[in-house]
Amino acid sequence: MSIKGDVVLLDCWASPFSMRVKIALEEKGVEREDRAEDLFGGKSELLLKSNPHQKVPVLLHDGKPICESTNIVTYIDEVWPTSQPLLPTCPYERAHARFWADFIDKKLFDAGGKIWRNKGEAQEVAKKEFIEVVKQLEGALGEKDYFGGDSFGFLDITAIALTSWFSAFETFGGFKVEEYCPKFSAWMMRCMQRETVAKVLPDPEKIYEFVLMLKKMHGIE
Amino acid sequence: MSIKGDVVLLDCWASPFSMRVKIALEEKGVEREDRAEDLFGGKSELLLKSNPHQKVPVLLHDGKPICESTNIVTYIDEVWPTSQPLLPTCPYERAHARFWADFIDKKLFDAGGKIWRNKGEAQEVAKKEFIEVVKQLEGALGEKDYFGGDSFGFLDITAIALTSWFSAFETFGGFKVEEYCPKFSAWMMRCMQRETVAKVLPDPEKIYEFVLMLKKMHGIE
Repeated sequence: MSIKGDVVLLDCWASPFSMRVKIALEEKGVEREDRAEDLFGGKSELLLKSNPHQKVPVLLHDGKPICESTNIVTYIDEVWPTSQPLLPTCPYERAHARFWADFIDKKLFDAGGKIWRNKGEAQEVAKKEFIEVVKQLEGALGEKDYFGGDSFGFLDITAIALTSWFSAFETFGGFKVEEYCPKFSAWMMRCMQRETVAKVLPDPEKIYEFVLMLKKMHGIE
Repeated sequence: MSIKGDVVLLDCWASPFSMRVKIALEEKGVEREDRAEDLFGGKSELLLKSNPHQKVPVLLHDGKPICESTNIVTYIDEVWPTSQPLLPTCPYERAHARFWADFIDKKLFDAGGKIWRNKGEAQEVAKKEFIEVVKQLEGALGEKDYFGGDSFGFLDITAIALTSWFSAFETFGGFKVEEYCPKFSAWMMRCMQRETVAKVLPDPEKIYEFVLMLKKMHGIE
């Protein structure tokens, strides 16, 4: 339960970036109020003035905005310390975790997006690129249970939230991540068994329908 | 002087991202060895294996690689603590600094690059975009001497390194940042008077010649 003031999340239910913030708050046992933003119909004045990028998620802590999901998760870890911090305590391991979180942000979601935005040869290229990125992440995971070692943490939160869209990528692309990256898939299953993750991640079928809606909205057949 | 092992920087003299790392190490009084990478002729095996993005800068601390400039600067601040840390100590202010560093990385250098890569109408659009981004940064600076307040820190390092290319952007675009953003220009002058910055930032004329070389290499007239 939050003991440090009001916590409001400007949110879209399908945003994997919002999901990161929700999982982190669940891990810390912090209660929050989610305020759904209408990203297509009209964003709230509060969102527009709170984030120069005008995107969700924005965390309002006692009215003060914090933007960008990995930045918010880091803030949450600092403001609500627990015996098991989300970020590693060793500076080198922390730098390693931040690097891979940034790698995920630069590569993973965009690569997946190209799968449902394209068809034919372009889609095949996108699938290869996506699988290559997941393989690089699998390499960073190595033989560990979680990215940080034995316990679920910052980098797991960063990655698992984006996997909420994997089922849609697989359906549109006609492939299975598990066939190419079995260890990464096992890690996904391990994370999904965690209460804080299972509670936050939506039904994959709903994400698929959301992507279908996006395709129609953008005139992609 | 470094008291915590070997510090090697895989570097390119014209990289503003490398400059960030150099300024941070200068601020901490840490000695380093710069190893110039040939980014066009052939990168070293060490660079290729140290950074999944295969880019400079990479800091090797006792042989262990740390990648991505703002990540490296954060690492430096944690490993070589000083009475005046580079990042703010307050979690909210730290989140604020990280947000704007990320904003700079997503917007500023690319916007400037469009100025020298384009001509005519496209260049005019690029100039407007670039000035708009600098104005947003000027807004974040406000009336303060430095981004973090009274003292030079993380966000100043992040931004001042990129300004090493501003003179080239101005020459190719035929404009002066000072005319649009006088407070930001005053902040630039303030930072440039700092020994750690003046020591690291190259002669603007050399950066201009470097950009000229890039234009020729890419067949841009």
